[in-house]
Amino acid sequence: MKPYAELTREELLNLKAELDRKYDDIKAKGLSLDMSRGKPATDQLDISMDMMDVLHGNADLSCETGVDCRNYGVIDGIPEAKRLLGEISEVEPEDIIIFGNSSLNVMFDSIARSMTHGVMGNTPWCKLDKVKFLCPVPGYDRHFKITEFFGIEMINVPMTPTGPDMDMVEELVSSDDAIKGIWCVPKYSNPQGITYSKETCERFARLKPAAPDFRIYWDNAYSVHHLYGYHQDFLLEILAECRKAGNPDIVYKFTSTSKISFPGSGIAAVAASKANLDDFRKYMRIQTIGHDKLNQLRHVRFFKNLDGIHEHMLKHADLIRPKFEMVEELLSKELGGLGIGEWTKPYGGYFISFDSMDGCAKRIVELAKEAGVIMTEAGATFPYGKDPRDRNIRIAPTFPTLAELEEAAKVFVVCVQKASVEKLLS
Amino acid sequence: MKPYAELTREELLNLKAELDRKYDDIKAKGLSLDMSRGKPATDQLDISMDMMDVLHGNADLSCETGVDCRNYGVIDGIPEAKRLLGEISEVEPEDIIIFGNSSLNVMFDSIARSMTHGVMGNTPWCKLDKVKFLCPVPGYDRHFKITEFFGIEMINVPMTPTGPDMDMVEELVSSDDAIKGIWCVPKYSNPQGITYSKETCERFARLKPAAPDFRIYWDNAYSVHHLYGYHQDFLLEILAECRKAGNPDIVYKFTSTSKISFPGSGIAAVAASKANLDDFRKYMRIQTIGHDKLNQLRHVRFFKNLDGIHEHMLKHADLIRPKFEMVEELLSKELGGLGIGEWTKPYGGYFISFDSMDGCAKRIVELAKEAGVIMTEAGATFPYGKDPRDRNIRIAPTFPTLAELEEAAKVFVVCVQKASVEKLLS
Repeated sequence: MKPYAELTREELLNLKAELDRKYDDIKAKGLSLDMSRGKPATDQLDISMDMMDVLHGNADLSCETGVDCRNYGVIDGIPEAKRLLGEISEVEPEDIIIFGNSSLNVMFDSIARSMTHGVMGNTPWCKLDKVKFLCPVPGYDRHFKITEFFGIEMINVPMTPTGPDMDMVEELVSSDDAIKGIWCVPKYSNPQGITYSKETCERFARLKPAAPDFRIYWDNAYSVHHLYGYHQDFLLEILAECRKAGNPDIVYKFTSTSKISFPGSGIAAVAASKANLDDFRKYMRIQTIGHDKLNQLRHVRFFKNLDGIHEHMLKHADLIRPKFEMVEELLSKELGGLGIGEWTKPYGGYFISFDSMDGCAKRIVELAKEAGVIMTEAGATFPYGKDPRDRNIRIAPTFPTLAELEEAAKVFVVCVQKASVEKLLS
Repeated sequence: MKPYAELTREELLNLKAELDRKYDDIKAKGLSLDMSRGKPATDQLDISMDMMDVLHGNADLSCETGVDCRNYGVIDGIPEAKRLLGEISEVEPEDIIIFGNSSLNVMFDSIARSMTHGVMGNTPWCKLDKVKFLCPVPGYDRHFKITEFFGIEMINVPMTPTGPDMDMVEELVSSDDAIKGIWCVPKYSNPQGITYSKETCERFARLKPAAPDFRIYWDNAYSVHHLYGYHQDFLLEILAECRKAGNPDIVYKFTSTSKISFPGSGIAAVAASKANLDDFRKYMRIQTIGHDKLNQLRHVRFFKNLDGIHEHMLKHADLIRPKFEMVEELLSKELGGLGIGEWTKPYGGYFISFDSMDGCAKRIVELAKEAGVIMTEAGATFPYGKDPRDRNIRIAPTFPTLAELEEAAKVFVVCVQKASVEKLLS
């Protein structure tokens, strides 16, 4: 079929009539499907079930330094958990702090602490007239919601195939001391699945921020979340790179096991310079008596080490790869060459990013919803929920079964076609 | 023996010589004992070990509404956990939110949120010139550390046998709108083991604060932590009382299972009015994707209901009651009638509060430390670590074994005697 833009008005009208019929047929099915959230599917959760048995009622629940993990104590993580999460994060155990079940919570708390107490002795942000954050777009809606919640002004920075537009990042960060941070998902980014290039990472490490309390929020959520054994993206280890560049304190590197073991019942961690970690520890000692050490122990006893993690991630990959491949094939088959959409083909992570023709995303998501398929809200991948070109849609293929996903994806492509024809006719 | 105050100088000097010898003999033993923190002992942790087996690898991990607890979702707690913690808190399931492993963390976050976002639409505290908190003294050091961390001015309010001095509380709260809260441990208070009387609770519920965003931080940490089956303190349920008084929003009621199951691996909760809970939920939705639901499920499957909790608490009581009794007997025997110390005899909780002669607490703790016995730091039970009369010492009898505790308590009484004689001779 020809690109839609080359169709005559009459051809478009005929196409519209056909798509309207198709769409009504779909609606008549009364579907109820969900491609909206980056949640593992049930079969992915099942592969971690043995984790429920590693800390049984007769087990020794002491960590390797002999501390009884059942009792109070050990504010920043048991040694073996620091080692395991350190391996995942490619840092030494002393460069990492273990937190509770949510790295998002740690990011939130880091911003909250910066607001009330400042970063490493700098003025608390709540005392400043203006605080700004850079937001590579499209990006992760939960990041943007945190900065919005604290009244921090968000500045869009376009993503490129190698990461955020670094010319723009460098210029803004070096010229405006109200800019205090940037949200990054550097590997298999949410939603595009882009991994920052070596050059991008090096330029991040060499930033010369106007603000001494500028920090890169490096959310390495998908560090080991590959889809293909034979092709993995490579990401430069940012802490070492920053140290080399004489910028050791510029980055907080977050990670968690949420999409490795059980979402919501995993463990989270931050890797950073000693000065930064001491800053974290200063408030942790006031905020809590300690995080859940039994869950730390449970994770270490189950995964053992990085090899165990990789082995486990292969099982995840085997379960979700067919879903990504199916969606990509369907998009190619039904939308390829039509000039009404582009999409990413990630090697890892949890999402496919879809860009429709300008001004169509909201309508597509609305059509899908009416037809019983929930997509992530259009605009969600931008600060304040405002996609200036109204074109980006995040596809989350993991949670439905393959059969459900296929049905949902078929609905989606019809919605894209219908919205595009409507747009061209308007 | 006569009260020390009635001894002649010569008698005191003889006594001092004898105590110095005793003390040196103790020091020579090279002891290493700890009566400092309110930690359960190992045998107390052992009684919860079956909890490690209730969520085994073949268990159905769905909550009663069918939600898979292994996955994301359910921001404010699974229904059965709300019911269980609701029973412990004497409130309905809809009046409670379930959090992570630490109620202290929830208190910290509540203050942090009040700083940055204000309480139910009121001005954020960080925008105010002055924020003050009332602190019943002696009290819980960790509470005071939180308010100190946020630069909140703390005002001492003396404790009486029926709770805080309510005349003072009423006067201060109604006259000063910079006073935004009060720290309370209303049952088996830390450190005295005092339970607030019915009248005290009623007066709390009927407070007429000058500040619309004044909140009572009602930390009901020891609600089911009785030492004796035949005598339990009774505490009025504060939420209902506040509702009756037309003051439904004035209180946050905190609880946790930290000293019921495993410290650091329990679950925490807040009970409050719907308006307050909605205020909590507003930031929770930004702060996290949800707390650890598997641990919530684990607790409910293990304890089942309030009967299960009470049955379990009897086991704790049987293990720690002998420790309290031994310390109390030893204090009576060695210090009774000497006029150099008073102490509480609580019916629950984790502490005995000891008041020495004025100006002796620091010296006693120092002497104990030199003799190898760690006590809670003198002054810790007061804001800023400053006990104006330098007399309060918190005794935490639970963690050592009975034999260790007896040895530690014997050292303690000699230190009290020695410091008192030194004081009288000075």
